[in-house]
Amino acid sequence: MMRYGACNKLYRTCLLATKLSHTSSQVSPHTVTTLLSSVNPEFQGHNVSNSKNSFLSRRVYMSSVSLGSLAAKEQEGHQKGIEFQLLRAVEDQHGGVVVNIDETMDTLVFASMLDVSLARWKEQGKKGVWIKLPIENSNLVAAAVKAGFRYHHAEPDYVMLVNWISNAPNTIPPNASHRVGIGAFVMNSNGELLVVQESNGRFSGKGIWKLPTGAVNEGEDICTAAIREVKEETGIDTEFVEVLAFRQSHQTFFQKSDLFFACLLQPYSFKIQRQASEIAAAQWMPIEDYVAQPFVRENELFDLLTKIWLSKVDEKYTGFSTILAKTSKSKKSYLYFNKKDAKSTPQELVQTRS
Amino acid sequence: MMRYGACNKLYRTCLLATKLSHTSSQVSPHTVTTLLSSVNPEFQGHNVSNSKNSFLSRRVYMSSVSLGSLAAKEQEGHQKGIEFQLLRAVEDQHGGVVVNIDETMDTLVFASMLDVSLARWKEQGKKGVWIKLPIENSNLVAAAVKAGFRYHHAEPDYVMLVNWISNAPNTIPPNASHRVGIGAFVMNSNGELLVVQESNGRFSGKGIWKLPTGAVNEGEDICTAAIREVKEETGIDTEFVEVLAFRQSHQTFFQKSDLFFACLLQPYSFKIQRQASEIAAAQWMPIEDYVAQPFVRENELFDLLTKIWLSKVDEKYTGFSTILAKTSKSKKSYLYFNKKDAKSTPQELVQTRS
Repeated sequence: MMRYGACNKLYRTCLLATKLSHTSSQVSPHTVTTLLSSVNPEFQGHNVSNSKNSFLSRRVYMSSVSLGSLAAKEQEGHQKGIEFQLLRAVEDQHGGVVVNIDETMDTLVFASMLDVSLARWKEQGKKGVWIKLPIENSNLVAAAVKAGFRYHHAEPDYVMLVNWISNAPNTIPPNASHRVGIGAFVMNSNGELLVVQESNGRFSGKGIWKLPTGAVNEGEDICTAAIREVKEETGIDTEFVEVLAFRQSHQTFFQKSDLFFACLLQPYSFKIQRQASEIAAAQWMPIEDYVAQPFVRENELFDLLTKIWLSKVDEKYTGFSTILAKTSKSKKSYLYFNKKDAKSTPQELVQTRS
Repeated sequence: MMRYGACNKLYRTCLLATKLSHTSSQVSPHTVTTLLSSVNPEFQGHNVSNSKNSFLSRRVYMSSVSLGSLAAKEQEGHQKGIEFQLLRAVEDQHGGVVVNIDETMDTLVFASMLDVSLARWKEQGKKGVWIKLPIENSNLVAAAVKAGFRYHHAEPDYVMLVNWISNAPNTIPPNASHRVGIGAFVMNSNGELLVVQESNGRFSGKGIWKLPTGAVNEGEDICTAAIREVKEETGIDTEFVEVLAFRQSHQTFFQKSDLFFACLLQPYSFKIQRQASEIAAAQWMPIEDYVAQPFVRENELFDLLTKIWLSKVDEKYTGFSTILAKTSKSKKSYLYFNKKDAKSTPQELVQTRS
């Protein structure tokens, strides 16, 4: 199992690398192979007869059977009077390299450069080879796959492929595995709960009053997302108090998992303005009426969440509130914990104990 | 903002759809266009002169300028005596369709079928069109992108593309956004903490003793991952007690975020057998020695976590323990909450209050 810290570090390195790859090259510049024009029938999957092909066809065929040595490839290229070139790459801190193709490139030029580059990286004992292809370079995906790459992840505007070329154990870190969502308990001074009816989804059209819920955006804090969703859906301004509980569920979309955080928020505005597109109705509702809904009573999970929230209303419950703390890299991030219970400093505690 | 529940539902539908797409078709079967062989120079990016091309070239050119009506396309096809065919798809519950290409297909056949299918789906008022391409079909990626699709996500063996073809607001749910990790506090009856030194990563070779940590696997529960990582790294058998705190951080790898759960575990074996590949050393260490490390004292976050854990050691702290609860769909998932504080049932509490 890839170490957790190591994964993060590798990812950070890759991110940096993809930013740098077209401004610098830590892999020594090397004059090698490129075929700037010609059509390779094997590669395209169409039988086009073209005299410019013969060398590349043979070369690609050879490389698919056995990569051979880089020196042999270079020599072959020089004999043909063809200039060869490696793909530009930067090294990562885990013995791998990262390639970022951010300009248009002919499919066959790329395939040829990748072929020679892989041979070079193998000779150098590199481990993981990462290729980031912006969507504009989708023509290169099939060539990378043909060269042994697999998908690592994709965002709307790029796909990241990876190829473990070493004999050492594969330590490629996994892709993001979870989506994160929030539900918001918001109560006014009359002891009424802020509830909504949704226009779409499994609860729509059934008269069910539920908590405002929503997905945490990319790069957004849970405590910020809860405030945003309540504002978007109901127009109510709130302050984050604490996470009352959270639930982890699996296989909620494709193979991915889901972390759902039930948050307590303190309102400081009370006039409801519902989101026209997604919310059919919104209101402040007496607790008893919310709890009495079969939808709440018959679902073990909703029942537990209500129990927790009512314990809080009666001031018997402590959830996890937040503190913004610096890491060793001076990056700030929220820590969620039971602040009421954690009172002393570590030094005080150690001194008390000894 | 896409509703949270709705997103999950859509994803579930897509998952189902991708499983079904080659066994059933809810989009009405329709005899239409397919070009089973010919080379389109525009599409391949190579100027190959080929007499079979003329019709397809014109058709693709037309479609890239203006899709025109499906009827016109069909008529044109019939005039040429060519059989047309739609891509097989299933409808999702959000007015979209899902296509799963799980057999090899010629790039141009796919491009042509996709073109005609999109025209049909637009006429039908469909919204999101999803295409799942196994890695064996990487030759089709560029054609889908050319037709207006963007990447949604990718796993090692497939890429999922999506195209919002409606004029209604785009409600395509986001991709998984978080990785999840754990750190484990394990203390023996002598008040000693289980600590390790890592072979790789930012803490290696520095003599730093740290908690066992690791990434939560796809589909794995946090409480299970903590037990597994401790066992893997140190050979120690444990029982999960509670989540003491958690931290959310951003931009830890590519654009993704990270949720790190600090877990308390109770050991029931004590003989250490370290993981040779990743752990340089492992031991039971007096609390005072662990806390005294500059690495712990100088990092605000580690300092806070230690403070929380020491509060727990002195029985002053309550974190979130687990209960396995059923949802309305009888799917079981773990809820993490302050069990000590949540004692009554909702009905009891409501009755108490009224």
